[in-house]
Amino acid sequence: MTMPTDGFSFEVVKTNGKARAGVLHTPRGDIPTPVFMPVGTLGTVKAMTAGELAADPLDARIILGNTYHLYLRPGLDVIRAHGGLHNFANWNRPILTDSGGFQVFSLAAINEIDDEGVTFRSHIDGSKHRLTPEISMEIQGVLGSTIAMAFDQCPPGQAETDVQEKAMARTTAWAARCLHVERPAGQALFGIVQGGIDVERRKRHLGELAPMNFDGYAIGGLSVGEPIEEMYRVLDAFAADLPGDKPRYLMGVGKPQDLTRAVEAGVDMFDCVMPTRNARNGSLFVPGGKITISNAKHKMDTNPIDADCVCETCQTVSRAYLRHLYIAKEILYNRLATLHNLTFYAQHMRQLRESILAS
Amino acid sequence: MTMPTDGFSFEVVKTNGKARAGVLHTPRGDIPTPVFMPVGTLGTVKAMTAGELAADPLDARIILGNTYHLYLRPGLDVIRAHGGLHNFANWNRPILTDSGGFQVFSLAAINEIDDEGVTFRSHIDGSKHRLTPEISMEIQGVLGSTIAMAFDQCPPGQAETDVQEKAMARTTAWAARCLHVERPAGQALFGIVQGGIDVERRKRHLGELAPMNFDGYAIGGLSVGEPIEEMYRVLDAFAADLPGDKPRYLMGVGKPQDLTRAVEAGVDMFDCVMPTRNARNGSLFVPGGKITISNAKHKMDTNPIDADCVCETCQTVSRAYLRHLYIAKEILYNRLATLHNLTFYAQHMRQLRESILAS
Repeated sequence: MTMPTDGFSFEVVKTNGKARAGVLHTPRGDIPTPVFMPVGTLGTVKAMTAGELAADPLDARIILGNTYHLYLRPGLDVIRAHGGLHNFANWNRPILTDSGGFQVFSLAAINEIDDEGVTFRSHIDGSKHRLTPEISMEIQGVLGSTIAMAFDQCPPGQAETDVQEKAMARTTAWAARCLHVERPAGQALFGIVQGGIDVERRKRHLGELAPMNFDGYAIGGLSVGEPIEEMYRVLDAFAADLPGDKPRYLMGVGKPQDLTRAVEAGVDMFDCVMPTRNARNGSLFVPGGKITISNAKHKMDTNPIDADCVCETCQTVSRAYLRHLYIAKEILYNRLATLHNLTFYAQHMRQLRESILAS
Repeated sequence: MTMPTDGFSFEVVKTNGKARAGVLHTPRGDIPTPVFMPVGTLGTVKAMTAGELAADPLDARIILGNTYHLYLRPGLDVIRAHGGLHNFANWNRPILTDSGGFQVFSLAAINEIDDEGVTFRSHIDGSKHRLTPEISMEIQGVLGSTIAMAFDQCPPGQAETDVQEKAMARTTAWAARCLHVERPAGQALFGIVQGGIDVERRKRHLGELAPMNFDGYAIGGLSVGEPIEEMYRVLDAFAADLPGDKPRYLMGVGKPQDLTRAVEAGVDMFDCVMPTRNARNGSLFVPGGKITISNAKHKMDTNPIDADCVCETCQTVSRAYLRHLYIAKEILYNRLATLHNLTFYAQHMRQLRESILAS
């Protein structure tokens, strides 16, 4: 299906129940879906080079950049001097940028929200800044991301009904304003559905956003502290309501088993810091779970993390070596661990895709 | 020239004055000389994978491992379970291990020296350990390094004459004891000449060690706080006295210009933490000097560190990107900076070799 923005289209190749195997075509290359997008907060997926991310068997087809973080550091003047985030970070494949909204509400020292936008203080130096739908789009334009996200208000998971309703109404109004901002060529724009864990409210919000004809639709405001069963319930009851001819993106999720569940519910795209952050914290993914590399039982273990894993880490070094590097706080540990966890996620998504194609 | 240990030989291909271009043949591959050996203290050249070290254009032919550090962490049981340091660290090319002597005297919390050896407390947990010539050789045997170093006493640069003389006498006695320890197949042994900045004493010590017929000879106890002109004076007056048919190794040196001076004085091998440590501290080598990447003047600089450098860092990212990563304390900075500085050193040594060959 052609998407509203030139150069983009989304093809559903095969379905199995609500699960879809597809291809998102972009001006910067094709993205087989379902897909997991590694998070590159500050213009780097932590510990990885761009070349390593793109190389087989990891072969990341799209990564994330965080608008809030990049706006504060290095700042737009630096990114502009490089002609955008792609050149700055030496990454030629697609980049998705968030709108900055989530970080403004969760990270910024102080924030004041009004119908126009948000005034906040930097978590780094306390300096005062303002984000509005127009400013978010302008920043994402300078970043030159392949997919921009509409500026939304993401209320806390436990927020009262009136807060939820107000955030929803604002998000709708802001979505319309985002669509009115001119974007650079080759930049798509996704809308974000809020509504917490109330399925009726989600459907109502989607009813407001769907006619706006975004290039894709995201589910925001899940995995923000609610019980996992609540998230599954909302996904099962709601994800497949998102327009079927456009990519569906579940923001900030999650564990491998969450990705499986969400794909079964009809979601195509994911991002999460879990594989990269867990790696740095000593938690390495293996089929069926995780291992804690600092555990004494790995001290003498000459086996790789996972004998069936095709990543360079598992092909070259032992659990004992990784444990040694982790305990000695060696930088190489972070590289090898991150490479493994990201490869694990990439393989997990490819397996989900294969199983849909084979169904 | 055949060296005493089977499988090793040293070939001087060309000389220019005292400077030599050669090849050190080892059972694990050839090492063109003069050569700089990156330091892999704990079984990792900090921030680098083994594959990256071996890949062009860095192409490191030999790296260092530190006996003291590896003995304490991960410990010999772990290394033994992997069949040696090569397998543990996934590095198949030559490794040179120091004897542990230098670290025992410089790092260990407390040390007590006697004619038999040294008792010391770990700088990590205060635990008590003992190193003797025999124990050092046994550890280096378990590590399975390609070149082992004799256990020596390295006195401080400002040490009085009687301390220097006593250290020299001990180093001679310990050298003989090291030679009596059986080594694994494919492991050469180098002797270390001490004597501080007194050329006469250096020559006298070499007179004691040369008849022992080590596979190579190292100059220890320089670059330990003495003025640089004193080091140059000793090198000019003494380095070429080391046996001409064997590799000559200047330990722990140094800056690119020091390497040039030492090669001119007849030295073949070097190691130093400078390129790797400087990289992590934000100091990047360029022809004729260094740049400090945190400097504000690099904020908007879209140029690479060095436009003529062939390393991946200079081929792919800007000074502004590196400055951003450095300020944000991103792990990727350490990788990219280390790769550049090590490539700079490798290229510097190759240029010195080329200029000797072309002379």
